[in-house]
Amino acid sequence: MTTPIPLKIAYLGGGSREWARKLMFDLALCPELSGEIALYDIDMDSARLNEQLGNWLHAPQQPGVISHWHYTAVETLSEALRGADFVIISIQPGSLELMGKEIAIAEKYVRFFPVGDTSGAPGLVRGLRSAKIYKGFAEAIAEICPKAWVINYTNPMAICTRTLTRVVPELKVFGCCHEVFAVQKMLAGLVAQYWGVPTPHKNEIKVNVIGLNHFTWFDKATWDGRDLLELVRHHIAQPGTLRPYRQPEVESWDDWFKSVHQIKFGLFQRFGILAAAGDRHLVEFIPGFIDSPETLFRYGIIRTPVSFRIARWQAAPQKTRDLLSGKTPLELRSSGEEGVGQIKAILGLGDIITNVNLKNQGQIANLPLDVVVETNAHFSRDEVRPLSAGSIPAGLLPLIQQHSANQELIIEAALTGDKDLAFQAIYNDPTTSLTLDKAWEMFTEMLSLDEGQ
Amino acid sequence: MTTPIPLKIAYLGGGSREWARKLMFDLALCPELSGEIALYDIDMDSARLNEQLGNWLHAPQQPGVISHWHYTAVETLSEALRGADFVIISIQPGSLELMGKEIAIAEKYVRFFPVGDTSGAPGLVRGLRSAKIYKGFAEAIAEICPKAWVINYTNPMAICTRTLTRVVPELKVFGCCHEVFAVQKMLAGLVAQYWGVPTPHKNEIKVNVIGLNHFTWFDKATWDGRDLLELVRHHIAQPGTLRPYRQPEVESWDDWFKSVHQIKFGLFQRFGILAAAGDRHLVEFIPGFIDSPETLFRYGIIRTPVSFRIARWQAAPQKTRDLLSGKTPLELRSSGEEGVGQIKAILGLGDIITNVNLKNQGQIANLPLDVVVETNAHFSRDEVRPLSAGSIPAGLLPLIQQHSANQELIIEAALTGDKDLAFQAIYNDPTTSLTLDKAWEMFTEMLSLDEGQ
Amino acid sequence: MTTPIPLKIAYLGGGSREWARKLMFDLALCPELSGEIALYDIDMDSARLNEQLGNWLHAPQQPGVISHWHYTAVETLSEALRGADFVIISIQPGSLELMGKEIAIAEKYVRFFPVGDTSGAPGLVRGLRSAKIYKGFAEAIAEICPKAWVINYTNPMAICTRTLTRVVPELKVFGCCHEVFAVQKMLAGLVAQYWGVPTPHKNEIKVNVIGLNHFTWFDKATWDGRDLLELVRHHIAQPGTLRPYRQPEVESWDDWFKSVHQIKFGLFQRFGILAAAGDRHLVEFIPGFIDSPETLFRYGIIRTPVSFRIARWQAAPQKTRDLLSGKTPLELRSSGEEGVGQIKAILGLGDIITNVNLKNQGQIANLPLDVVVETNAHFSRDEVRPLSAGSIPAGLLPLIQQHSANQELIIEAALTGDKDLAFQAIYNDPTTSLTLDKAWEMFTEMLSLDEGQ
Amino acid sequence: MTTPIPLKIAYLGGGSREWARKLMFDLALCPELSGEIALYDIDMDSARLNEQLGNWLHAPQQPGVISHWHYTAVETLSEALRGADFVIISIQPGSLELMGKEIAIAEKYVRFFPVGDTSGAPGLVRGLRSAKIYKGFAEAIAEICPKAWVINYTNPMAICTRTLTRVVPELKVFGCCHEVFAVQKMLAGLVAQYWGVPTPHKNEIKVNVIGLNHFTWFDKATWDGRDLLELVRHHIAQPGTLRPYRQPEVESWDDWFKSVHQIKFGLFQRFGILAAAGDRHLVEFIPGFIDSPETLFRYGIIRTPVSFRIARWQAAPQKTRDLLSGKTPLELRSSGEEGVGQIKAILGLGDIITNVNLKNQGQIANLPLDVVVETNAHFSRDEVRPLSAGSIPAGLLPLIQQHSANQELIIEAALTGDKDLAFQAIYNDPTTSLTLDKAWEMFTEMLSLDEGQ
Repeated sequence: MTTPIPLKIAYLGGGSREWARKLMFDLALCPELSGEIALYDIDMDSARLNEQLGNWLHAPQQPGVISHWHYTAVETLSEALRGADFVIISIQPGSLELMGKEIAIAEKYVRFFPVGDTSGAPGLVRGLRSAKIYKGFAEAIAEICPKAWVINYTNPMAICTRTLTRVVPELKVFGCCHEVFAVQKMLAGLVAQYWGVPTPHKNEIKVNVIGLNHFTWFDKATWDGRDLLELVRHHIAQPGTLRPYRQPEVESWDDWFKSVHQIKFGLFQRFGILAAAGDRHLVEFIPGFIDSPETLFRYGIIRTPVSFRIARWQAAPQKTRDLLSGKTPLELRSSGEEGVGQIKAILGLGDIITNVNLKNQGQIANLPLDVVVETNAHFSRDEVRPLSAGSIPAGLLPLIQQHSANQELIIEAALTGDKDLAFQAIYNDPTTSLTLDKAWEMFTEMLSLDEGQ
Repeated sequence: MTTPIPLKIAYLGGGSREWARKLMFDLALCPELSGEIALYDIDMDSARLNEQLGNWLHAPQQPGVISHWHYTAVETLSEALRGADFVIISIQPGSLELMGKEIAIAEKYVRFFPVGDTSGAPGLVRGLRSAKIYKGFAEAIAEICPKAWVINYTNPMAICTRTLTRVVPELKVFGCCHEVFAVQKMLAGLVAQYWGVPTPHKNEIKVNVIGLNHFTWFDKATWDGRDLLELVRHHIAQPGTLRPYRQPEVESWDDWFKSVHQIKFGLFQRFGILAAAGDRHLVEFIPGFIDSPETLFRYGIIRTPVSFRIARWQAAPQKTRDLLSGKTPLELRSSGEEGVGQIKAILGLGDIITNVNLKNQGQIANLPLDVVVETNAHFSRDEVRPLSAGSIPAGLLPLIQQHSANQELIIEAALTGDKDLAFQAIYNDPTTSLTLDKAWEMFTEMLSLDEGQ
Repeated sequence: MTTPIPLKIAYLGGGSREWARKLMFDLALCPELSGEIALYDIDMDSARLNEQLGNWLHAPQQPGVISHWHYTAVETLSEALRGADFVIISIQPGSLELMGKEIAIAEKYVRFFPVGDTSGAPGLVRGLRSAKIYKGFAEAIAEICPKAWVINYTNPMAICTRTLTRVVPELKVFGCCHEVFAVQKMLAGLVAQYWGVPTPHKNEIKVNVIGLNHFTWFDKATWDGRDLLELVRHHIAQPGTLRPYRQPEVESWDDWFKSVHQIKFGLFQRFGILAAAGDRHLVEFIPGFIDSPETLFRYGIIRTPVSFRIARWQAAPQKTRDLLSGKTPLELRSSGEEGVGQIKAILGLGDIITNVNLKNQGQIANLPLDVVVETNAHFSRDEVRPLSAGSIPAGLLPLIQQHSANQELIIEAALTGDKDLAFQAIYNDPTTSLTLDKAWEMFTEMLSLDEGQ
Repeated sequence: MTTPIPLKIAYLGGGSREWARKLMFDLALCPELSGEIALYDIDMDSARLNEQLGNWLHAPQQPGVISHWHYTAVETLSEALRGADFVIISIQPGSLELMGKEIAIAEKYVRFFPVGDTSGAPGLVRGLRSAKIYKGFAEAIAEICPKAWVINYTNPMAICTRTLTRVVPELKVFGCCHEVFAVQKMLAGLVAQYWGVPTPHKNEIKVNVIGLNHFTWFDKATWDGRDLLELVRHHIAQPGTLRPYRQPEVESWDDWFKSVHQIKFGLFQRFGILAAAGDRHLVEFIPGFIDSPETLFRYGIIRTPVSFRIARWQAAPQKTRDLLSGKTPLELRSSGEEGVGQIKAILGLGDIITNVNLKNQGQIANLPLDVVVETNAHFSRDEVRPLSAGSIPAGLLPLIQQHSANQELIIEAALTGDKDLAFQAIYNDPTTSLTLDKAWEMFTEMLSLDEGQ
């Protein structure tokens, strides 16, 4: 058995009640790594609770834990970053209440966002806020730990990730999102359903990933060398695959994140390329779907209520305390996320290829250099190198250019304080579709909330 | 007095009841040119009437006529093109009735197009039809008179003009539209209003033209060296400049083409660049305005009824006959169009600079090469060379890229017969904003009309 | 043990006396593949001898052979291609005598080419000839086996490989060259020398490959996570690393392909990036070195005499016959080439990453799309996908643009018959450096040879 | 008679013994302008003499002078720039002696530069020096008179002009050179010679200008609508047009700037496009001609001795004094330069189109944006707008890319102090063609001179 590699990880948003715990568990199950994790959060209480949880896992080691880590909640960003090998960022840019209010404002303008964290007016206003925060992160990292690898989990993914290298081009940054995995799993399901084999693991579903986070696409997908886009075509042609959903059916689901792929399949029918994100995300990037809850229901989409997010967030500490007190037994399980695998690859412990958000350096040939795009990349020692994903098809390109350009406008607006640029992005977004006056009203109403904070 | 230059002009759409007559009158007033004009039209009767009118003007010369031209209505395209120095194209791509039906279908989907000839679903379906016709023109010109200059007046301007060089890159093609002049005149009006001088001629309003036809922009405008965009800013700031219009007021106008610039000024307020087309065109390129007649009224826009176009078209022959019979006196007057001036410049009779639609050869630095764009150009002997118009501002670029890309998709669809590509353009268009299903329904309903012809 | 995958391989240049045998031996040692190999060559006798050799290996199996293949020399290209899964091309484009004469002509103009197969006047004239041949290959493959993977080994690599997809864009083509491996081995040697470890295998030398074949570069190289470019810097700084070589010393070498890296290190000193080809190739791409044998000697370069190539070529059949007759014992050994590994990866038998020549699809961000470049690529089932190699440094870019543009000019010249274009490439080449008149004389003298054939 | 427009002109290099006087005379002959001219020079005596000359012309007015100007030699750059409407720059970047030594060093390396001010090692080293000086100019202008128009006459033109906007992108800069006019005049001569008409004025020779200063090209040239490139083809085909020149003949010329167009015609023969600069400049941009004085003689090129420049420079003050003392009579004549015409156009006194060096904003479609290129431009009130010049032909493009990229490298080197970048430009230059060692030696020898100053 070799000695584990000692690391210092800075976790910004260290009070995170979801991503942080996934990471803790995945690290607990990984014997090759060990070290210190500094938890930094503007919500110090949450960071402290995570500190407790982390250290409880390791000292003494809970059953199943096979690594050694020490967690410390720290008071300052600088303290967190000092000596860091990796910086992980998963913050809430603004409160969930603020998010809820922004989405509610959009509803006043008859725009019903199922998620509201990436695109459309709520996503872009959130991006404006995030870019200002991330400017600070970029400058601090550049000063304190410029060689560290920075991994972002916060949405809006592209805006957050891009702001870091826009402000400090030398930073080593990538952004991770599991959205694509669900579509690989859906394809694995079709393999089982039509080809009579056991459902393959999602990693066996080979895909070429091309696009923007939450608006990602597969222009090629295979399993065992067989064409899965052809299979999707076959599946869509089956009676009942494309059908109107009804409100009660949709509302009866107990899973806010469920996708029944009606949007994805509809886009595939007309554009010949498979969108690789949940339908609730997709409708926030394309025209025509978010004009009423009824339209959304018809396509099997229910909006994730922010109240659910708040409740989940509020309930989380008690869950942790129950774990610490032994009230709930510990179930150690891999999260299915690839963060730890990526860290290991970067440390030289085994190459992997997976999808990731990176500065465009040619991997998408018909988007501008330097904007953040999502494609596959090869992770190896000290390196995350994108695979060439090719070009986006001509009919889809304008929509993707639009969103990518809007992300750049939002960052420019955040860095220069030019409110008009931010508005231009919001007006241009295909989900806005309001007169200039109404769009401006909606935008300034959202901004005033934010300023009121 | 020098001998006039002898020319052969082929007029495709020679039965034209508007553009052809403007040209006839302008030529009648131009002593430097003379020659033959072949009128070709699928509506031979109309061509014959224009032939009569043309020859009546010249043989013997009516009072005020100072040139010599002979007009012939011809049976075939080949005959028209044989020996032509210039080919002028102003056709109706499909009947006005068909146009009316397409616009009516859009209304079923709650999309109210004031014009419907360039962008949006009706404009793009019209483009699809036009590109097929223009492919034929391109091939015939290449075969019969490959050195001729081709001047297009038909809408959709960019699609028609671009199809010609897409099919035969060597053709010498430009497209003319007077839309920009009206905005120069509006600016001239502001000069008079605010600066207490007599209204300048539109040619004194110096502008940098940048964009696509009917979605053209001025990023610089001056009169006598003074900044007119600053003046527009001042004008907008006056109470009452931006105000809601009411339906009766708008409906009381007896001018279907009137523009009260509310859209233009609104865009200027938010984007800082001045749109250079009538508001009725502008709302067909941007999101949010065509969802109801009420919204249009509010911004002072009334839809040009196709019934008006049909009535005008039907009335035109009688007007001509009244002229020929002497019932109406002839009033010879320059049309204000620049066609004859452009022809003269190309023949070496005086350089001019004016706006024109041309293949992009770098004049707009951030649009792809070869798409058709509208900018200023320098017309001189045997040459129409664009002036560098610079780059489109970042916040406006995505909208313009979108429309330009859609025009390319429509042409590709027309040339390859790929219906999906055409649909992609229609779905992408910011005025569509429908679910995929509804957009597809609308599209196929329009297509079936066309196929039914 | 699983059943081997049955294949049909078409070998164009099947009389090859070097590459064909390497392939035969590598396939003999690979139990996962089996099948038919059609050998097609304009020199039928050579193809027949290879057929004999191939079948002698397998029927019955010689000791060590662990696969089953059947070889057939065929009379026509069509017969070779029929049903092929892979097409391997390694031809001699023109006789070795012709090559010798072209190099001799260059010497009359005081240009001493050590190799003469890729760049400079002899390489480009050879390219002109090759592009015409490859046009025929492209058309035949497109007609007979359009889905086959085409692997090129012929020089000039970029011109040959690019011609195939220039003529038929859909073909699946890549080009292989072992030149890079030797530089990896040199680096492995430095690792051993300076870091006191056993010489690593070349595959442990991790490199980012960027450039054109035979003018390839490493902008990053590591072993075990340690920076090898830094090590090269250290090595160069040692007394004696850079030193003048003397003619007798160089001439005493019994290896025509030896590289002492003086050019590579010199370029590294000034450009900060490591060239990844033998010095004898490098001097054919850069200015200033081929003006005299003395200059070449000074940098430890000796020209590979074409007489040696001819002798080797003439001796080869007897060697084969000696093997067949048992006079020479068979020594089965892997060639060190990666062809079979690549084929296996494409068949789904294990992914690899290695350097390869491919159409640029963004892998080099600052070269035009579609030109053939050399970078790393990920080989997996049915796919060869480049890794993003980034951008070529600004100071090196003009030289690489120059050569890449010249390759395109040569292909254009070959396909259109425009001799001037070919001349422009030759005059532009930095090794030519002659007046227009002398360059033209040299060029036409070379061409007349070729035409005389 | 309208009142002349009052101006303040800052003349940097105000001691100039050539350009300053041309300007003085041209201004003296222009009644529409008047005002103050501040002469700033590191050589104050020369500035004072120009001050004397300028004021002598105007107070009282010498015969023929029809304008009012006042000249002041000023001590500081700031004083010169304060309130300037136009800044004219024509400096000597380094002494003529230094220039002589640099050219002499190149000769030691068997490179014989006829001019040595723009490209090749001497031109690029001069550029390195100039870029440092121009950085200071840019910063001072940005601070003191940011709205002024800046007109550059100094060589290397592209490097000087580009440095200004590289350092301060907002500056309004263009660069003027008369090199193109001489080629227009040569074409006018051919018109007279072959078509039996009086020699046309050079302004009647209509050309499309495309390229880099001193390496400019005409891809179209007409007179009265007739094709002059065809005429050049005819001229070249005449016996005797292309012929070897002999040394005594060339040396007998009493004009150091004479061009017999052998290089230009040779390039036209092979590239099909007409170079628009004197042959002595052209050979400094292309391979193969500067290896010996004999080769240069053969093509009718004699090197301009720096000793001649020094003598002319030294003799100039006495000439001025002779004028002031009345020993030499004043002959007022337009210089033929276009500077005053350009200034008038910018002031709104009549549009002109002429060739000029400007930041690329798309006027050359296949060169990068922002590098300085030479094309035609339209000068009008407050505006210098390039005409779209199209694309450089594929066979010529690599050479032009090379030089343009080298100019950027030199500026980057000057601004960052990175000596290696400057060397890379020098090694890449097609006239260098030396081994790395020799090129480095030559480069550092030149640099040491400069540092020694």
